[in-house]
Amino acid sequence: MRQLMKGFGIALLMSGGSALANDSVMAEIGKPQQWAIQTGDYANSRYSSLDQINRDNVKDMRVAWTFSTGVLRGHEGSPLVIGDIMYVHTPFPNNVYALDLNDGGKILWKYTPQQDPNVIAVMCCDTVYRGVAYADGMILLHQADTTLVALDAKTGAEKWKIKTGDPAIGETNTATVLPVKDKVIVGVSGGEYGVRGRVTAYSLADGKELWKAYSTGPDAEMLVDPEKTTHLGKPIGKDSSLSSWEGDQWKIGGGTTWGWYSYDPELNLIYYGTGNPSTWNPGQRPGDNKWSMTIMARDADTGMAKWFYQMTPHDEWDYDGVNEMILTNQTIDGKDRKLLTHFDRNGIGYTLDRETGELLVAKKYDPAVNWTTGVDMDPNSETYGRPAVVAQYSTEQNGEDTNSTGICPSALGTKDQQPAAFSPKTNMFYVPTNHVCMDYEPFRVAYTAGQPYVGATLSMYPAPNSHGGMGNFIAWDNTTGEIKWSLPEQFSVWSGALATAGDVVFYGTLEGYLKAVDAETGAELYKFKTPSGIIGNVMTYEHAGKQYIGVLSGVGGWAGIGLAAGLTNPSEGLGAVGGYAALSDYTALGGQLTVFELP
Amino acid sequence: MRQLMKGFGIALLMSGGSALANDSVMAEIGKPQQWAIQTGDYANSRYSSLDQINRDNVKDMRVAWTFSTGVLRGHEGSPLVIGDIMYVHTPFPNNVYALDLNDGGKILWKYTPQQDPNVIAVMCCDTVYRGVAYADGMILLHQADTTLVALDAKTGAEKWKIKTGDPAIGETNTATVLPVKDKVIVGVSGGEYGVRGRVTAYSLADGKELWKAYSTGPDAEMLVDPEKTTHLGKPIGKDSSLSSWEGDQWKIGGGTTWGWYSYDPELNLIYYGTGNPSTWNPGQRPGDNKWSMTIMARDADTGMAKWFYQMTPHDEWDYDGVNEMILTNQTIDGKDRKLLTHFDRNGIGYTLDRETGELLVAKKYDPAVNWTTGVDMDPNSETYGRPAVVAQYSTEQNGEDTNSTGICPSALGTKDQQPAAFSPKTNMFYVPTNHVCMDYEPFRVAYTAGQPYVGATLSMYPAPNSHGGMGNFIAWDNTTGEIKWSLPEQFSVWSGALATAGDVVFYGTLEGYLKAVDAETGAELYKFKTPSGIIGNVMTYEHAGKQYIGVLSGVGGWAGIGLAAGLTNPSEGLGAVGGYAALSDYTALGGQLTVFELP
Ligand SMILES: O=C(O)c1cc(C(=O)O)c2c(n1)C(=O)C(=O)c1cc(C(=O)O)[nH]c1-2
Ligand SMILES: O=C(O)c1cc(C(=O)O)c2c(n1)C(=O)C(=O)c1cc(C(=O)O)[nH]c1-2
Repeated sequence: MRQLMKGFGIALLMSGGSALANDSVMAEIGKPQQWAIQTGDYANSRYSSLDQINRDNVKDMRVAWTFSTGVLRGHEGSPLVIGDIMYVHTPFPNNVYALDLNDGGKILWKYTPQQDPNVIAVMCCDTVYRGVAYADGMILLHQADTTLVALDAKTGAEKWKIKTGDPAIGETNTATVLPVKDKVIVGVSGGEYGVRGRVTAYSLADGKELWKAYSTGPDAEMLVDPEKTTHLGKPIGKDSSLSSWEGDQWKIGGGTTWGWYSYDPELNLIYYGTGNPSTWNPGQRPGDNKWSMTIMARDADTGMAKWFYQMTPHDEWDYDGVNEMILTNQTIDGKDRKLLTHFDRNGIGYTLDRETGELLVAKKYDPAVNWTTGVDMDPNSETYGRPAVVAQYSTEQNGEDTNSTGICPSALGTKDQQPAAFSPKTNMFYVPTNHVCMDYEPFRVAYTAGQPYVGATLSMYPAPNSHGGMGNFIAWDNTTGEIKWSLPEQFSVWSGALATAGDVVFYGTLEGYLKAVDAETGAELYKFKTPSGIIGNVMTYEHAGKQYIGVLSGVGGWAGIGLAAGLTNPSEGLGAVGGYAALSDYTALGGQLTVFELP
Repeated sequence: MRQLMKGFGIALLMSGGSALANDSVMAEIGKPQQWAIQTGDYANSRYSSLDQINRDNVKDMRVAWTFSTGVLRGHEGSPLVIGDIMYVHTPFPNNVYALDLNDGGKILWKYTPQQDPNVIAVMCCDTVYRGVAYADGMILLHQADTTLVALDAKTGAEKWKIKTGDPAIGETNTATVLPVKDKVIVGVSGGEYGVRGRVTAYSLADGKELWKAYSTGPDAEMLVDPEKTTHLGKPIGKDSSLSSWEGDQWKIGGGTTWGWYSYDPELNLIYYGTGNPSTWNPGQRPGDNKWSMTIMARDADTGMAKWFYQMTPHDEWDYDGVNEMILTNQTIDGKDRKLLTHFDRNGIGYTLDRETGELLVAKKYDPAVNWTTGVDMDPNSETYGRPAVVAQYSTEQNGEDTNSTGICPSALGTKDQQPAAFSPKTNMFYVPTNHVCMDYEPFRVAYTAGQPYVGATLSMYPAPNSHGGMGNFIAWDNTTGEIKWSLPEQFSVWSGALATAGDVVFYGTLEGYLKAVDAETGAELYKFKTPSGIIGNVMTYEHAGKQYIGVLSGVGGWAGIGLAAGLTNPSEGLGAVGGYAALSDYTALGGQLTVFELP
């Protein structure tokens, strides 16, 4: 069983994938003993074929070893394991450790970037970093200040170093990069600072810029073909973005690209989503604000867009569309299809044909979602593919300086950056979710470069008339759009899930528990209180014939910003401080790796 | 077995100890399920009668739960357990957490002092704190800035708060306090800033000062009786301190009191040691520099000194005499005696009669010690009780601006603050030691209040011609002055030991391992890599019928100052940075509690 396909990586590799993808990345992902990419595989499935730890014995799991990163605040992402080396990253200042798994985790090398700490002030949602990437014998570190460094994986020596953005105008980085073929694909953060989102491809060999595709603006700068790039099967047409904004607003219009990236080597397409339009005051930016809040499929070589799908036109709630795209080959309506599944901040779980961008399923993955009655699925309708907005929860219709109350989900979304996992054994998706609602009061704001460009006051609280908690961990059927089971959690589940061939699904909680549940039933099989709240993603690897489970602790992220940044005023942290105030009864700041094993 | 005596606490309590000691402290120490005082008991024995975890099953130990303190840098001391609550402290800013052991370590209250961070600059050896104390329903917190706060143990509410020193002239605190009867006994740090050492007793009820005993100066201020206070059986005589200094030098002469305190309820005597004379340049301060480097026995009610023993007259190496005094009742030379055993920085293990101050044994506890040929044990000799100094290693004889090389031990001593443990079952002492030598070059320095008053440049390295490591963990027979066994360690063992009735001895290493060894043979039975280097002291407690072992990780202290303070120049950190440079290959900063259990 151990050599079962990992996503679709192995199969491809064996069918002569050398012309596709990046050979070294594919080769390393192909070894199930390793965790060679933050997302588990190019498909973002976060599934491991390792099965030593299984639903029967996981109850006996114990801590094998631990490692303090030496840094506090939110620890997102996970370590990588390549060969006998584990690579551990930290939030700002984005240190990287190479640990020798053959020598008790001895530190082989440490890389400590010297960054101007002023960048912290322009990071919206904690000093998080979703982890390093590996390609061609290099560790790719994308720092908070947008410095992208390629390090020799064996020695930690710098190979090349470039700058991908400018923190002086609010451009920062929190995302991992995606190495594809001879390129590395890079996003940008700063939607709360009016940054103009884009994706850039640099040469893996020397960091030279190869193509750049903005989320907004003129067609040429977006790398779209008005005739060939489609939206729900139709060409997007000329100036699709420009015509959806007032005047020059697209220049400070957000649509940043701080989430996860997927890649389909056969189609040679990369997939990712764009973030919220800036500002959060919708009245200030009439139009659909294209292409914010959009799933994008682009050619990996040229960056040219194949298709877009805008989930939340003219966002009124900060429902960034950047969550991961999980690529699977499944049967739907009796047909084998290449699917893309995406759990959006807006509370809708989307299933699309990833070749064509056809919308197949769009269903709420939390029954609390109330801002929309649902997505129009009629291809012949004027509003095909658009969510129907409930007037009561429309912050635009209620207007500036009016507090729209009881909106579900909150701006954090039904899910934020915390990635879901897919098990090909159960054909289910395992989704860490938020069960949080909000009041949202937009106000007029002026743009100043490098200053917050937010324009709304928020407060957050657990979904009313529910279980009282702020999260659920759910199993989802993407072909029918159904919740299979749902585990209530006191706080949002801000940690990424891991599914394994052992029929176990792992996730972490904001209080700090690592939990293992039965992949079929959701029954809790194991839990352990790690040092600090978990917002990292659970990973697994095998070393010297033994399977391990690893996870970073270190409370923070947007949900934990109160603890992370020492804020106590409920409306601070863009409204999250009040909502998660009770977290301080359970955990304190940290920064630790905990590795588990069977005895 | 579980109710076996804990030091001599229980026995006393049962024989009507209520007029002696502090009732509440004695009562809480008397419950072997608890860890009610940093030192395990008043006798500083760090022995627990718990025996669920024993030499046979300790190999099966696993991590039960963990807690991140939210603070980095050196974590000395240990949590306390009183009833169902665990109290966890941090280094500066000296936060205190009360954790509910009945509710998965939920935080019942948190106390976060607001201290001026400038105090960090006048802490010689990291921002460590050796932990809170308990008495009369209060948690006693002595902050780095010398604020002493009494907190309601149930709620964390401040009951009273006083200032015991002045950081502006280099007075700081790192030590735990000793609650005795209706008083709390408090020391001071700052020997590297010319602080005048003293011990002060405050009222437990309201923090009012009750007595104060300086280490140096006029008899009245030292609370000595020239006729009744003895040194090796003879009265110390009038102006014993004044006459041992040139002019007013005693006013800036050090002799600080930053170590551990013991108390014998029957004799009503407290015991502690005084630190180095300031400056480190011995040529600048002729004389014996009394009473620096001295073991002191004082009446707990009045502070009056019963006896002194100066171990290192006219110190030339910074061998502070502050290490713990372990009080035992043992048979020596066929006689039952009340003993005091002390492992001094200077490399000599002393055994004294704690009633009279008679010197019984003085032997090197590391064969590497070379600055002295030994202590004169002839009561009729002129130099009775004095160590014979080897001229080659006399930094005074070699003179100012001369580098004296190859001195063993280094200024860190053969042991520093890391406390030893005593098992009444084996009658052995378990001693964490340093195996480090040094070069020492004194230079002339002028005193400026609040500025370093050091006057020597040091470099440190592993003891030459030995096992290459910088530490040993040894078993010691205090009646004969013999090393029973010695376990080589790569780095100094900077963690406090714990001995248990399960015939297991625990200690931590600077790389971060918690180790369990056989109390008889020293054979290693278990080890586990905690998140960061351990300089905390191992403790044990029982909750809901189950025994736990707890230890704080968080590398730092003098040995770990390079990592803790981010120093890399080898001569920084008073010479420790170079010596321990390799530590950064093994561990990074942290601040975590790890609690162990049997499955
Ligand atoms: O618009 C942006 O550029 C941007 C960036 C980030 C980020 O980089 O972390 C977040 C968000 N938005 C955001 O809306 C959000 O909810 C969020 C949560 C987190 C996190 O890591 O917990 N980051 C971000
Ligand atoms: O003379 C003093 O007042 C003083 C204070 C301290 C301290 O407060 O920690 C140390 C020392 N000296 C000292 O000599 C020393 O070796 C030392 C080690 C440590 C430590 O916690 O690791 N503190 C201190």
